Amino acid sequence: MRVYLAKNLREANQSNALDNRKILDEKRILLVNIIGSPGSGKTTLLEHTLKIISKGYRAAVIEADLYTSEDSGRLEPWCETVLQINTEGGCHLEARYIGHLLTAEAPYLLDMDIIFIENIGNLICPAEFDLGEDLRVTLLTVTEGNDKPRKYPLAYQDSQATLITKTDLLPYCSFDLNEALNDLKMINTAIKVFPLSVQTGNGIGDWIQWLKAHVEAKKNYAGN
Amino acid sequence: MRVYLAKNLREANQSNALDNRKILDEKRILLVNIIGSPGSGKTTLLEHTLKIISKGYRAAVIEADLYTSEDSGRLEPWCETVLQINTEGGCHLEARYIGHLLTAEAPYLLDMDIIFIENIGNLICPAEFDLGEDLRVTLLTVTEGNDKPRKYPLAYQDSQATLITKTDLLPYCSFDLNEALNDLKMINTAIKVFPLSVQTGNGIGDWIQWLKAHVEAKKNYAGN
Repeated sequence: MRVYLAKNLREANQSNALDNRKILDEKRILLVNIIGSPGSGKTTLLEHTLKIISKGYRAAVIEADLYTSEDSGRLEPWCETVLQINTEGGCHLEARYIGHLLTAEAPYLLDMDIIFIENIGNLICPAEFDLGEDLRVTLLTVTEGNDKPRKYPLAYQDSQATLITKTDLLPYCSFDLNEALNDLKMINTAIKVFPLSVQTGNGIGDWIQWLKAHVEAKKNYAGN
Repeated sequence: MRVYLAKNLREANQSNALDNRKILDEKRILLVNIIGSPGSGKTTLLEHTLKIISKGYRAAVIEADLYTSEDSGRLEPWCETVLQINTEGGCHLEARYIGHLLTAEAPYLLDMDIIFIENIGNLICPAEFDLGEDLRVTLLTVTEGNDKPRKYPLAYQDSQATLITKTDLLPYCSFDLNEALNDLKMINTAIKVFPLSVQTGNGIGDWIQWLKAHVEAKKNYAGN
């Protein structure tokens, strides 16, 4: 019974995700869904990414939290449009929340070049819900340990990129970078991996360059 | 509709949790439910805790993971009984899984003094499911940032203790310990907080002493 309901729920989500994708393809807007554990550095990554990306592109952020809006406050200095979704305890975003913003609540999102979604801090449930994104980017923090891709494979399996964050802490952690890279490639042979640190700036340039290439490719998208 | 279903599911869970509690009270076994983000140090904490606790008490661990059993392997050297639950993608444990072990699959658990549950690495969903535990212990890692109790209040609100883990990394992180303590006390005035590091051993003694006092209190429990 519960499996059946879960299946229905996911099927409805998939249909809503396709609707989002259709709207965004037509407007040639890149949608980036950022997933990671609590404290993996999603907001900090966005602060540093927006500082650079906002100079050349119209960027918006959809910020998801259970109850609070502190993270939105942190992003507002770097981005013209920050929208907050509070899930009131809900552990993931669903495509219909994003669809509601695009079609009803915040149609000015359709003037953007790139929209970032900071998903709820959770490696499990968000992985099951396609939001209609072009890029799913999952964070892996060196302090979490390199076994996380093996333990939470779905999030990494369906991602285009993994950012290995807080690499400045590598000397103080028992994180095996080679093992992490091997595991990620085994789960997802096509995945791009960017080890980086916002403290030292290492690796940020490669990540931004990859992101910009995707914004440009989407702007030149001619449809299927 | 979905709210109604979620409510029914939680009501059924609560009834199963009460059944577990009745069995464990009768046998005077302490049940400890350990909750934390992926990589917050739950398994490492258990390794170090079991090394000490197993000397004086019969201890068992119920280890929950999505698919893997690596963590169970890490705990087996330190504990006579380690049981693995794989949720096959499920994001939290439910009381009926524990009830099934206690009454059908693993009745030898009823010979223990203390049973630890390492819940799925997730700060959100496990917080909503009472397993019948005496103590809920939630981890907060200094690398996650001190805003996590504010952002994920439920897990901390219903806990008897919070362990602030990896304090050896405090010099390298922007974690405000006082702010974390203030937030935790505001969410839950009765909560015990143990800052600790398994690397340096700092704080471990206080945590073990508190835990032992609860095992002893449960052994002498005379019922309601």
